Amino acid sequence: MPAAITLLTDFGHGDAYVGVLHGVILQIAPDARVIDLCHEVPPQDVQAGAFLLMTSYKYFPKGTVHVGIVDPGVGTQRRIAAVRAGGHTFVGPDNGLLAWAAADAGGIEEAVAVERPEYWLGGGAGPISRTFHGRDIMAPVAAHVATGVALDRLGPSINALMGELFPSVTKTTAGLAGEIVYVDRFGNCVSNLPKARARPGDSVLAGGQEIPVRNAYGEATPGHPLAVVGSAGLLEVAVANGSAAQQLGLRVGDTVLLRGQRCRRMA
Amino acid sequence: MPAAITLLTDFGHGDAYVGVLHGVILQIAPDARVIDLCHEVPPQDVQAGAFLLMTSYKYFPKGTVHVGIVDPGVGTQRRIAAVRAGGHTFVGPDNGLLAWAAADAGGIEEAVAVERPEYWLGGGAGPISRTFHGRDIMAPVAAHVATGVALDRLGPSINALMGELFPSVTKTTAGLAGEIVYVDRFGNCVSNLPKARARPGDSVLAGGQEIPVRNAYGEATPGHPLAVVGSAGLLEVAVANGSAAQQLGLRVGDTVLLRGQRCRRMA
Amino acid sequence: MPAAITLLTDFGHGDAYVGVLHGVILQIAPDARVIDLCHEVPPQDVQAGAFLLMTSYKYFPKGTVHVGIVDPGVGTQRRIAAVRAGGHTFVGPDNGLLAWAAADAGGIEEAVAVERPEYWLGGGAGPISRTFHGRDIMAPVAAHVATGVALDRLGPSINALMGELFPSVTKTTAGLAGEIVYVDRFGNCVSNLPKARARPGDSVLAGGQEIPVRNAYGEATPGHPLAVVGSAGLLEVAVANGSAAQQLGLRVGDTVLLRGQRCRRMA
Repeated sequence: MPAAITLLTDFGHGDAYVGVLHGVILQIAPDARVIDLCHEVPPQDVQAGAFLLMTSYKYFPKGTVHVGIVDPGVGTQRRIAAVRAGGHTFVGPDNGLLAWAAADAGGIEEAVAVERPEYWLGGGAGPISRTFHGRDIMAPVAAHVATGVALDRLGPSINALMGELFPSVTKTTAGLAGEIVYVDRFGNCVSNLPKARARPGDSVLAGGQEIPVRNAYGEATPGHPLAVVGSAGLLEVAVANGSAAQQLGLRVGDTVLLRGQRCRRMA
Repeated sequence: MPAAITLLTDFGHGDAYVGVLHGVILQIAPDARVIDLCHEVPPQDVQAGAFLLMTSYKYFPKGTVHVGIVDPGVGTQRRIAAVRAGGHTFVGPDNGLLAWAAADAGGIEEAVAVERPEYWLGGGAGPISRTFHGRDIMAPVAAHVATGVALDRLGPSINALMGELFPSVTKTTAGLAGEIVYVDRFGNCVSNLPKARARPGDSVLAGGQEIPVRNAYGEATPGHPLAVVGSAGLLEVAVANGSAAQQLGLRVGDTVLLRGQRCRRMA
Repeated sequence: MPAAITLLTDFGHGDAYVGVLHGVILQIAPDARVIDLCHEVPPQDVQAGAFLLMTSYKYFPKGTVHVGIVDPGVGTQRRIAAVRAGGHTFVGPDNGLLAWAAADAGGIEEAVAVERPEYWLGGGAGPISRTFHGRDIMAPVAAHVATGVALDRLGPSINALMGELFPSVTKTTAGLAGEIVYVDRFGNCVSNLPKARARPGDSVLAGGQEIPVRNAYGEATPGHPLAVVGSAGLLEVAVANGSAAQQLGLRVGDTVLLRGQRCRRMA
């Protein structure tokens, strides 16, 4: 039984690009289960893709091969990487897309630059496109890995991935300072502040407003902001029945300051 | 061979929530076929979800496990149910989402409240989220059922599901009175009036207009309303190349009066 | 092992129509792999569907059954066809949807009109809908073919498919004249001009502008038009970070004139 393969892209559903990835994989690994993780990553938004990959891979069995294709540099000299971390394999452009997931899974166990065309579409027999490396390189390579091809056959070893680490939170006198790392399609603003640090009764400062930490969306008044631990185990700023991104003017990178009860009592 | 599993949610495709459901199921029931029924149910529109489930489950083999997740009450005390009806199993919040399908399938054969965490994500070893019971409870439970776990192991028996019955039609002196039960994304307004009652030559009264019953969309003049038996075997009000919901101001719950030829002759 | 089945439709994802196709196939061919090629073909845009099918089928194994459902004539007397070409089977309305793919695959090896209801939903036992032949005829027929039913059991042989051929390019004194055959959701305008004819240094005339041929999107200034060989091996007119369709006012059918370096030198 070959490993399962997941696909995360910014291709959308309006063309047949995703279907074609499935076809390419089917030809190489006919028994592999292929699962669509998400294909509506905002176009070329590498960080959004990195966030979705980091928060999703862990719900799949070890051994799964995760393909990420958010690739503004396709056709340029950017590298394609295949990385093993925490028993999972990640394949995609080495532009930061894979870095958060690999670190979250425990760090790189093995990583290679994908360079040998014998594992690409057509097996190296002909030229490949300049615009669709997902079809021509990443999907075929992932399919080969799912059937048991060792990473070191794909290309030379590399020591590290490009891209920033998942941002860490900082202790300040005013509280624990984090930042928005992802805005979902409802306008919920997910921060890097971990679940363990937030308790009901705390509040956060974001977009110039003090916002109470609640146990669930249902505890807030419609139209009012709240902070709540989301399904990824991270504190997020939301507006009940509304968009926090819009109402509070929040974006990825903006600061979120978590102030415990003690802080506020001292203030 | 485990049973097939279908998924119907209001998660949309913009995040990786649907993909994660597949991962969770894959870990518990690696051989189960998992089919996406629909993930674009309008957010929190329980009735739309109930309608889609009722009109779709019957095209799947008996034994299939259908998971429905349209769950505005997630994190509150609402119950999660698992129900067997007509040889199908339905799993979801007990908020009306499952009721129409279960009744349509012949009524409840067995129903339980899903309460035992040994069949949830992590097998009851740790806490689960307050915001994503689809991932943490419903998908794992469905996967266990697909592999053969009996419903009575999931929690205590219950006698009935919450929620209204599919509305029945009423005979009146003016004709057969039904109502709009679903509006699709094209603005077609599906009523509860069954196929057997409508014949070409009949007309319906909806939104203050008299509308002819036709055999097919193609029989109407573009821009003009018609009533036609749709693929679910129910009479729907449509506008050829247009939106009946918009043009006639129709919504779920509005009355549709079917007037046979005899009625009109008498009028 | 039955053949794989791909599905291409204009159903969108807002209803459960696609899920129901999967259910119908699952009942007839439980072991067949079913892959969603695309379900967001613009409603009733047969040519867009034909283009996506022609450029996608070849990435699947021979033996695959490709179902295309873009069917404005459903319920009328239009024919449903099943066609074998290049080792692939195509099933769909005979309205041009299948013609480009069949020709691209090498031409029709065998073709039939789908007429025998024993291979339809319900096996011919009862009436079928007038509005959903995808569910009631095409999906069941494709599932039967995937399990090994011969085409000649589906209905009488036919000699040709309806619909235009993929347009050919024309040599003119001004250059090679092609036309726009597909506009993708980003506004990229794909022509019928083949890869082999375009070299960097060439230019195209489209929408009244002279546009340089480049190797990759990245070589153009944002906001400026370029022509580039796309992933289907055809020259397309694009605007870096923009919509060529909108900015240049291009549509399907518009002329694109490829002028080689020699042409321009002579001019």
